[in-house]
Amino acid sequence: MNAPLRVAVTGAAGNIGYSLLWRIASGNAFGADQPVILSLLEITPALSKLEGVVMELMDSAFPLVKGIEMTDDPEKAFADCDAIFLVGSRPRSAGMDRADLVAANGPIFVGQGKAINKAKKSVKVITVGNPCNTNCLIANHYANEIPDTQFTAMTRLDQNRAYGQLAGKLGVAASDIENVFIWGNHADTMYPDCSIATVNGEKITDKLGEDYLHGDFMKTVATRGGAIIKARGASSAASAASAAIDHMRDWHLGTNGRIVSMGIVSKGEYGVPAGLVYSMPVTCENGEWKVVEGLEISEFCQGKIQQNIEALEGEKAAVADILG
Amino acid sequence: MNAPLRVAVTGAAGNIGYSLLWRIASGNAFGADQPVILSLLEITPALSKLEGVVMELMDSAFPLVKGIEMTDDPEKAFADCDAIFLVGSRPRSAGMDRADLVAANGPIFVGQGKAINKAKKSVKVITVGNPCNTNCLIANHYANEIPDTQFTAMTRLDQNRAYGQLAGKLGVAASDIENVFIWGNHADTMYPDCSIATVNGEKITDKLGEDYLHGDFMKTVATRGGAIIKARGASSAASAASAAIDHMRDWHLGTNGRIVSMGIVSKGEYGVPAGLVYSMPVTCENGEWKVVEGLEISEFCQGKIQQNIEALEGEKAAVADILG
Repeated sequence: MNAPLRVAVTGAAGNIGYSLLWRIASGNAFGADQPVILSLLEITPALSKLEGVVMELMDSAFPLVKGIEMTDDPEKAFADCDAIFLVGSRPRSAGMDRADLVAANGPIFVGQGKAINKAKKSVKVITVGNPCNTNCLIANHYANEIPDTQFTAMTRLDQNRAYGQLAGKLGVAASDIENVFIWGNHADTMYPDCSIATVNGEKITDKLGEDYLHGDFMKTVATRGGAIIKARGASSAASAASAAIDHMRDWHLGTNGRIVSMGIVSKGEYGVPAGLVYSMPVTCENGEWKVVEGLEISEFCQGKIQQNIEALEGEKAAVADILG
Repeated sequence: MNAPLRVAVTGAAGNIGYSLLWRIASGNAFGADQPVILSLLEITPALSKLEGVVMELMDSAFPLVKGIEMTDDPEKAFADCDAIFLVGSRPRSAGMDRADLVAANGPIFVGQGKAINKAKKSVKVITVGNPCNTNCLIANHYANEIPDTQFTAMTRLDQNRAYGQLAGKLGVAASDIENVFIWGNHADTMYPDCSIATVNGEKITDKLGEDYLHGDFMKTVATRGGAIIKARGASSAASAASAAIDHMRDWHLGTNGRIVSMGIVSKGEYGVPAGLVYSMPVTCENGEWKVVEGLEISEFCQGKIQQNIEALEGEKAAVADILG
């Protein structure tokens, strides 16, 4: 049996954490034969609730779980980690606009970024806590000992929502669809791109017109978070955790040629300014992601790419003080 | 790829359901290559919340999920099912004792038992909703077209809690332990039996004395539900769902010789009156469970077996009217 991977989860006592931990522990992220040690981080006031979560994890007697640790100290949580799920973040409160939210979250990710320097150089970091692209950018900035390639932000929930909508519209299962991906920011500006997507091998753009793909489809995916809150009386938790599992599993175990979405640190691909954390089409192999380059970009898509660049540059400007 | 299994979950909008559905959808219960169609049942007032859960399941784009249906009609929910998780039940309210709780739940399981006649003859039913042994007994009584062998009650959470406690005490991982199982009722009378259990191949009774195994250990496992509520501010959900997954996976895919706990309809094994739903040591193979017979029973264990017989006969008496 492989040596255990050390896997940290922040905001571990929250609702996404509660869904995520059991999925990790059952082998969904790293494989059914890969043991893990769970390293759980919470803010001090949430430690007593986290203790209850740890009790329930013990009570699940997972064969793959070789240890469970909890702390309110990011350096302890991240020390020697192979993978880190940055789930915890400060939620939006009444009267906050997006710039306020970005600024309020900044200091959390400064501290966590510095602490990530204690992890392995090969650590895989996924940022789930919103605004996740810019939180990831800050953490990466302060984790100066870890390569940029190891920092990612989650747009897989948008991608999965796009698959769900297309499957419903086409009357097929999600598994019949391939190669839909997300450009840009995990925000309502994100663009779900179907230009190379297929359903049972046929082009989706031959089945569904621009009026739908640039209209209802895009709008439904962009506003899905709010629709879930309205229907369920609580924000997306299990589906967000599921997307984080998909992102990490694909990164760790590979996509076998499938194209998926990851927010990564741009090197200038597709005209996205280097250094922005931006969702792009990627494939994964041998534990590494690679941007799919050379795709033909329509005028509409180019406009959406530009809109997301401007949104993310705006977020970056809102944390200019923090980035120094 | 195999044909999809039709899997029903009752109480699907509740907290255990919310943990359970993603574990089923990811292949944890029926295997990573076994597609499923999810058939979700809720009481009418919870259907709008269930709609939110279904939206999140769509948003998870699970490759194995070939359909998701929701209804408030048990006959529709259970029609042609291969597996049923009976999770929903009426919780205890202030001033109810166990007999009141048993009586309050009876009518739910009369209706669901009758509706289970619409499922496949080979349907695997696990009863999670408490008092689960007697709820299972009622459902089985009214599902007269389905063999008794297909009705089970969940004591796997007690078993998993026992593994967690022993692993903590011995300083090992849960996977180092084998063959701990539960006798009797899913209630504080249940008996976690370590008489044939091992840790890394050595007998646990050689490592831990009766003062612990019949004292703190038994008490901690029996009162764990209350301890979780105190620590987490909510009752066990993810760990209960995880136990249901373990129970169904072992039944469906086999235990490979390992002994596990299932509440089954007694045929008189170990002196347990025929017809009671009682947790026994079982092994599973080819989709069938089999009671492990011929175990040596200590005087202490015999007393616990008898205590659970009396408790379950008391519960049965409380629903005598319902059983007719």
